[in-house]
Amino acid sequence: MQLQGVRVVDLTRIISGPFCSMFLADMGAEVIKIEDVAGGDPIRAQGEIVGGMGHYFASYNRNKKSLTLNLRHADGMAVLRKLIATADVVVDNYRPGVMPGMGLDRAALERLKPGIVSCHITGFGLDGPYRDRPAFDFIAQAMSGFMSVNGEDGEPPMRAAPPITDLVAGAYAAMGVCAALVRRARTGLGEEVSTSLTDGMVSMLSFLATNFFATGRLPARTGNDHALVAPYGLFDASDGQVAIAPSNDQVYDKLLDALDLGELRDHPEFATNRDRFARREAINERINAKTRERPIAHWLAVLNEAGVPCGRVLDLREVFDDPQIRHQRMRITIDHPRHGPIDVLGFPIKFADEPCRIHRPPPDLGADADALLAELGYAPEAIAALRRERAV
Amino acid sequence: MQLQGVRVVDLTRIISGPFCSMFLADMGAEVIKIEDVAGGDPIRAQGEIVGGMGHYFASYNRNKKSLTLNLRHADGMAVLRKLIATADVVVDNYRPGVMPGMGLDRAALERLKPGIVSCHITGFGLDGPYRDRPAFDFIAQAMSGFMSVNGEDGEPPMRAAPPITDLVAGAYAAMGVCAALVRRARTGLGEEVSTSLTDGMVSMLSFLATNFFATGRLPARTGNDHALVAPYGLFDASDGQVAIAPSNDQVYDKLLDALDLGELRDHPEFATNRDRFARREAINERINAKTRERPIAHWLAVLNEAGVPCGRVLDLREVFDDPQIRHQRMRITIDHPRHGPIDVLGFPIKFADEPCRIHRPPPDLGADADALLAELGYAPEAIAALRRERAV
Repeated sequence: MQLQGVRVVDLTRIISGPFCSMFLADMGAEVIKIEDVAGGDPIRAQGEIVGGMGHYFASYNRNKKSLTLNLRHADGMAVLRKLIATADVVVDNYRPGVMPGMGLDRAALERLKPGIVSCHITGFGLDGPYRDRPAFDFIAQAMSGFMSVNGEDGEPPMRAAPPITDLVAGAYAAMGVCAALVRRARTGLGEEVSTSLTDGMVSMLSFLATNFFATGRLPARTGNDHALVAPYGLFDASDGQVAIAPSNDQVYDKLLDALDLGELRDHPEFATNRDRFARREAINERINAKTRERPIAHWLAVLNEAGVPCGRVLDLREVFDDPQIRHQRMRITIDHPRHGPIDVLGFPIKFADEPCRIHRPPPDLGADADALLAELGYAPEAIAALRRERAV
Repeated sequence: MQLQGVRVVDLTRIISGPFCSMFLADMGAEVIKIEDVAGGDPIRAQGEIVGGMGHYFASYNRNKKSLTLNLRHADGMAVLRKLIATADVVVDNYRPGVMPGMGLDRAALERLKPGIVSCHITGFGLDGPYRDRPAFDFIAQAMSGFMSVNGEDGEPPMRAAPPITDLVAGAYAAMGVCAALVRRARTGLGEEVSTSLTDGMVSMLSFLATNFFATGRLPARTGNDHALVAPYGLFDASDGQVAIAPSNDQVYDKLLDALDLGELRDHPEFATNRDRFARREAINERINAKTRERPIAHWLAVLNEAGVPCGRVLDLREVFDDPQIRHQRMRITIDHPRHGPIDVLGFPIKFADEPCRIHRPPPDLGADADALLAELGYAPEAIAALRRERAV
């Protein structure tokens, strides 16, 4: 696989960091998840637990090994240092001061393993006035400006329900690690990569930010309507709603033809996107009057055939029953040797020759400790002593 | 920089693909943006245009070269093939059949340049029943299930205002390209990478999907309240609202102490998260009664000091004035030699040794044609002939 032979020491927990190391593991890296001796990653206990295994934990920690370590115990730290000396990458999502406080600042990591790539995921960044603040997805959604642009005009700002800032930061961190490994392959040099929940989400403000930069004007909240384009949004079919998104004038023309509304093409009130945007309710009503005549399935067939982007708002049952999502295997079943079948989210990045795959089930807490400690040179009696000490 | 020496032929347009190649360019790759001779990337004309340069275009196309090519002209295609023979990566966001239709299926790309990494960003995936459907962010937000979980209970599903599915797919594509380059450095082998707007967003359904997998129950829309945790959300200060997100029982205890509400700790109705979740309105009212007494700034100071994640919903002006966002340089000014200063979004991935930086301004249409064609061996008179033919 893409990252075969890459060993990752994974000090992360909860979501953002485990999402990052999930990608590394899915792409073939050996990811060693370091977990606290007292219960491990708290995400093990969150969400639904079936057959003794948390499904939320399983989805983000498939393909990883688990090693429990007490990092407040000198012998636990000694194991961690030995392990880092064998690693290519070390990832954490502690607050910025924690790794240096453990004696693992960048210089120390580089001494343990020259050329190592370290990666830090934080709430606000490695430095700056908020660096030591506690963070959480909801706070980053609020402080990145993302919430301020979502929701209906005149209604409160609206967060997204998934922990989107954790997920974006985790994906960026994985990208940064891979890029640093490209450089290391070329130069032999290590690197320190970092990203934050807030910076990650700010980078996703797209035209809302760039229009603000250009004009100084704040964007309005526009609900399900586009801020620049009309018509666009949810329209009424005879049995529900259809999402229709004609992205430009050419596609708008196709929409008019497909709806048999060609007479609107020469209508002076709707000639340009600017005209239609200014008369959004009027143009929407013209379209609704037509789309109400037939059911959703009719319009999906007609509009897709005409080249007009369209679809339905699917709930999660419909998503995972959908023939396209099934074809793309976005829900996959892991047959866990101890916990039975567990369904997890599939792989969004596809590789033709060496695809991501499930090569290990999500680990039980500390499942790989004995093998990893033996590999580091600990004899069975030394391992037993570490366990007695609760160091591992 | 991380991707120094990597040459990318970039056949993408609009958002998802240019967002992918922006990361590659920001990390040091030489990205050659291929644009249609008739006006180039349509995004050049979208959003606010200042001093002759679109700010939306600038943000996603900084650090890239521009080469116009007429890909419906045999001589234009000949230039493209010569260029691909010099490249490490080729990226497109056409519909799945287009590259094969141009004679650029994977086998052809591999013949032109053994070991090349190709990357395809599509709406629904390279195959499956919807592969040929037109796509657009709004449709992918609807069909991925993402909209179905966002919004208030009893209100319609809600999209996010930024084109989040394009952006997530673009980031995943960049990650996949970097990972394939790691493999190529190890093996010399090329790879075909792909991702889609829909698969990308499905992968971000997180606990909402995994709880559905575990139970078969659809998640409710919960607006700005967390689906699993209470208290959590926006609370009233004397001069506005404070976002507060106590992620677990330990942080909830810190919140009670910080609010001087310690008496609630032993209150039987609020003992566990489950209790509080079942009585969300009651616990929220207890907290609001306290937070209403003092202004936002007071609570941010007190709660951050106590280790409770908290913040404000910032609008875009506040975001880009914020001392942390400024410290992280998430708004940067490019002093364009022809178009004057242009502000663009900053770099969400930080590298300590070789950071992302602006090494080229966003290109004028076809700005790098002469230099690139000369490098490919075209003499000045041959270049003039290509121009007369409108092939470049």
